[in-house]
Amino acid sequence: MKGFFYPRTAHGESSLIPDPPWFYSGDLLTVEYRTDPARVAELLPAPLELAPEDPGAVALIWADWQSCSSSRAELLDPVRAQYKEAFVVVRCAFRGEVFSRCAYIWVDKDFAIARGMHQGYPKKLGSMWQTRPHPFAHAAPSLAPGAMFGATLAAGDRRLAEAVLTLREPAGSNGFVNGHPMAHHRVYHGIERGAGDAYAELISSGAARFEGGQAWRGDVDLRLFESPTEELARLRVDEIIGGYYRQVGVVWDGGRSLARLEAAEGASA
Amino acid sequence: MKGFFYPRTAHGESSLIPDPPWFYSGDLLTVEYRTDPARVAELLPAPLELAPEDPGAVALIWADWQSCSSSRAELLDPVRAQYKEAFVVVRCAFRGEVFSRCAYIWVDKDFAIARGMHQGYPKKLGSMWQTRPHPFAHAAPSLAPGAMFGATLAAGDRRLAEAVLTLREPAGSNGFVNGHPMAHHRVYHGIERGAGDAYAELISSGAARFEGGQAWRGDVDLRLFESPTEELARLRVDEIIGGYYRQVGVVWDGGRSLARLEAAEGASA
Amino acid sequence: MKGFFYPRTAHGESSLIPDPPWFYSGDLLTVEYRTDPARVAELLPAPLELAPEDPGAVALIWADWQSCSSSRAELLDPVRAQYKEAFVVVRCAFRGEVFSRCAYIWVDKDFAIARGMHQGYPKKLGSMWQTRPHPFAHAAPSLAPGAMFGATLAAGDRRLAEAVLTLREPAGSNGFVNGHPMAHHRVYHGIERGAGDAYAELISSGAARFEGGQAWRGDVDLRLFESPTEELARLRVDEIIGGYYRQVGVVWDGGRSLARLEAAEGASA
Amino acid sequence: MKGFFYPRTAHGESSLIPDPPWFYSGDLLTVEYRTDPARVAELLPAPLELAPEDPGAVALIWADWQSCSSSRAELLDPVRAQYKEAFVVVRCAFRGEVFSRCAYIWVDKDFAIARGMHQGYPKKLGSMWQTRPHPFAHAAPSLAPGAMFGATLAAGDRRLAEAVLTLREPAGSNGFVNGHPMAHHRVYHGIERGAGDAYAELISSGAARFEGGQAWRGDVDLRLFESPTEELARLRVDEIIGGYYRQVGVVWDGGRSLARLEAAEGASA
Repeated sequence: MKGFFYPRTAHGESSLIPDPPWFYSGDLLTVEYRTDPARVAELLPAPLELAPEDPGAVALIWADWQSCSSSRAELLDPVRAQYKEAFVVVRCAFRGEVFSRCAYIWVDKDFAIARGMHQGYPKKLGSMWQTRPHPFAHAAPSLAPGAMFGATLAAGDRRLAEAVLTLREPAGSNGFVNGHPMAHHRVYHGIERGAGDAYAELISSGAARFEGGQAWRGDVDLRLFESPTEELARLRVDEIIGGYYRQVGVVWDGGRSLARLEAAEGASA
Repeated sequence: MKGFFYPRTAHGESSLIPDPPWFYSGDLLTVEYRTDPARVAELLPAPLELAPEDPGAVALIWADWQSCSSSRAELLDPVRAQYKEAFVVVRCAFRGEVFSRCAYIWVDKDFAIARGMHQGYPKKLGSMWQTRPHPFAHAAPSLAPGAMFGATLAAGDRRLAEAVLTLREPAGSNGFVNGHPMAHHRVYHGIERGAGDAYAELISSGAARFEGGQAWRGDVDLRLFESPTEELARLRVDEIIGGYYRQVGVVWDGGRSLARLEAAEGASA
Repeated sequence: MKGFFYPRTAHGESSLIPDPPWFYSGDLLTVEYRTDPARVAELLPAPLELAPEDPGAVALIWADWQSCSSSRAELLDPVRAQYKEAFVVVRCAFRGEVFSRCAYIWVDKDFAIARGMHQGYPKKLGSMWQTRPHPFAHAAPSLAPGAMFGATLAAGDRRLAEAVLTLREPAGSNGFVNGHPMAHHRVYHGIERGAGDAYAELISSGAARFEGGQAWRGDVDLRLFESPTEELARLRVDEIIGGYYRQVGVVWDGGRSLARLEAAEGASA
Repeated sequence: MKGFFYPRTAHGESSLIPDPPWFYSGDLLTVEYRTDPARVAELLPAPLELAPEDPGAVALIWADWQSCSSSRAELLDPVRAQYKEAFVVVRCAFRGEVFSRCAYIWVDKDFAIARGMHQGYPKKLGSMWQTRPHPFAHAAPSLAPGAMFGATLAAGDRRLAEAVLTLREPAGSNGFVNGHPMAHHRVYHGIERGAGDAYAELISSGAARFEGGQAWRGDVDLRLFESPTEELARLRVDEIIGGYYRQVGVVWDGGRSLARLEAAEGASA
């Protein structure tokens, strides 16, 4: 039976996602801020710990992606290539090393959800919008001082976050919170009634290749909103670190297992 | 860390799906037909085998659901309760027992995808529509002889299937293909580049409780369409068995593991 | 050139909507409340005036529809038949007669927008959800005392309204605010830069035929939310009148012109 | 009462669209081809006639837009600024002058539908996708020889058109079919049962300002598909003229009335 993901068949054409490597071209709008480190700690299962420096740092990142597999077939049927996402990244420490970790993430396509299952990104469906730069400024900002970009996130017909970024100057990077290898859990709950996890693994991954354009730093206004099914607003905005815009190209091609967890450790409440 | 599914947090309010049991009220429009048994065999990984009787029987089922957890909170915010799906069921044999098995399934909500991950339903996003009965016939059929129901399935902006069912008479059931316990795979591909499956399990589950209204049988017209990312049309319609309509209530509350597969068995192409 | 609506062609098959009559079967969840009559007056262009009795009464109505033309072809391709809406109705007086008037309305299909253009309903796109009753109570209310229904409205990725209705008892009607013939404007702005209206007409219409099931009255909780592109929340909820649930069948088959307005009267700001 | 479009209120904040001028930045993927001129004539109500030269020329254009009003507020809440469309343009002659004319158009936002009502574009909802160029080629073409772009159109859960464009060389324009002022009808059917048009006007409009980047010409493959509610496939592709890609900035600020039609002329079938 063939197929990197389900459904697997004799011919393998139905798989929701193809074999890696996966290729991405996109625009990232990043907001970094500080929250109460105790709120970050709520998102770190043992043995993960808070990062030793600036442990309350959070990145909320919007991304407008085009993506494909090695065949590049998706690019000619772009309903299968384009998607948007917004995700929250914190940092953590594991065995003395600092990792980035995606705590929450929303996307708008099923193939993106499936890639997230594989990579340990906890993806839900959402509605994300971010202003696009364009060569003609009639209804678009340029990548230049004073340019303004808006970004919004909604899920379940509720707005969860909105940001406005005003570019100020070129910057050496688009932030530091999402700059480490990712430490993610991949978990499969047992099928029996009342069971804990049947499978739980801590993995690490990151870009196999990365190219980034000139990053821009700017001033940012960020608002988070309550929802009965989300805890994003618990990561209260205590202090804005900065806002960033950057265009990037990325290749993802697998990760490595950090720890296979005993079922008992991962048991649900 | 709490949460039946991801994302897990200290408070557990973010989990994409709550703990079972899960409750469902909905309407099922079922089309059963025969295809070449060799095409069914393409969907059955060893050690699953074709069912001994009528091995080419296929059910294509549309369902219009309202669902909730024990709290019933979703019912008061129905964007979280209502979803539609269409799914293809075949039968198979395992250790001398006959099982139903969902080969393909499309849904329109993320919580339904997550429940499918848990239960082994290979869910993708799609757009499904089925005619609803209503007490006032101005723009609706009744559950009565001659009533006509349409049902369509699309994904990736392509129509994949469409059916028209004309009710003829009450029936003892709404078909036999989906009438056995389900035998599903739950698979997690290894994170390393080129890896096979890190986890693969054959599980069985079914309704913990089921109530069904009067089933209706009718004549049905079914058409399947090609798509570069789907293999549904390989299950060519050779002979219609029947069409059915039935309203049901269901409780799902876990399953049982049939076999934990060695990683090598489940390796991808 | 044939076609009730655009696009018109030699064959007329492309028209976004077919010739009336139009047929509807659906479920209505109505919330009636009182707001400051001055806020209702803001929605009534001269010569319309506030209704003489209970002028601050407002109905916010959710509807889950199946609809079709005389051919009933839409019912067999239900993506063309099913839609949801939420709308706000106030009352007004014109030449001594009391009319209902839809002030705001959101729908989720283009054919519904087009019908609204014709009938004078100011339709925007939105996302509406309302709990459905079902014969099996596993995940659904029945039409019975104590049954609870939720309803939500969102547009532009913001939630605009949410209601919870708890049925208490059968009622003689599902409210009075939407019980009169509708008095609506149909307006076409002039194409020239800075022009006022090229066409403006006050029309009246209502159901050509109507059948309703047993109405239910209940207790209701209603919340309205702010949005920069909506003024719904200006119709502040001062006092709940009641909540209602009713299943109905409707035929719409044209209206009558009440007044053809001089262009100057209808000029935009 | 204020508001360029409905709903009009005392404060005017609810209007689905603001006063012109309207500003656009976007990318156009154009396919031009020849069909049977008789099929074009089917789309031209008298007194419009076929263009004297190359009367069977058709342009099918995909556009990926960001748009805003003078306040530019939409750009910071981009769910209100971004939309996609695909539209069919033919040419016609009126009083000895050649005009372009949009025969069919699909968009994915309500504000775009409303602008189309005003401008005479016969907009329906659809799902449109077109490959985007990006500075990083990991999953994107560049504007360079050999770059490939895909474009698809669907409506009613059916795919209506798909194209693949392979850039070959810079070009002096992005086609000629959409290069004239537009001649569009604005029509309002009478409200009475069986009535003809209450209002019908032939108007002309075009860009108040236009800037375009370097156009590219290429080879194109185009396929049109049947649908029971569309007549696009009647404009059969007899001969490809060319494919084009161009980034543009546009301002729209009103048009002019060419003829106010007698009601009888515009009556529906």
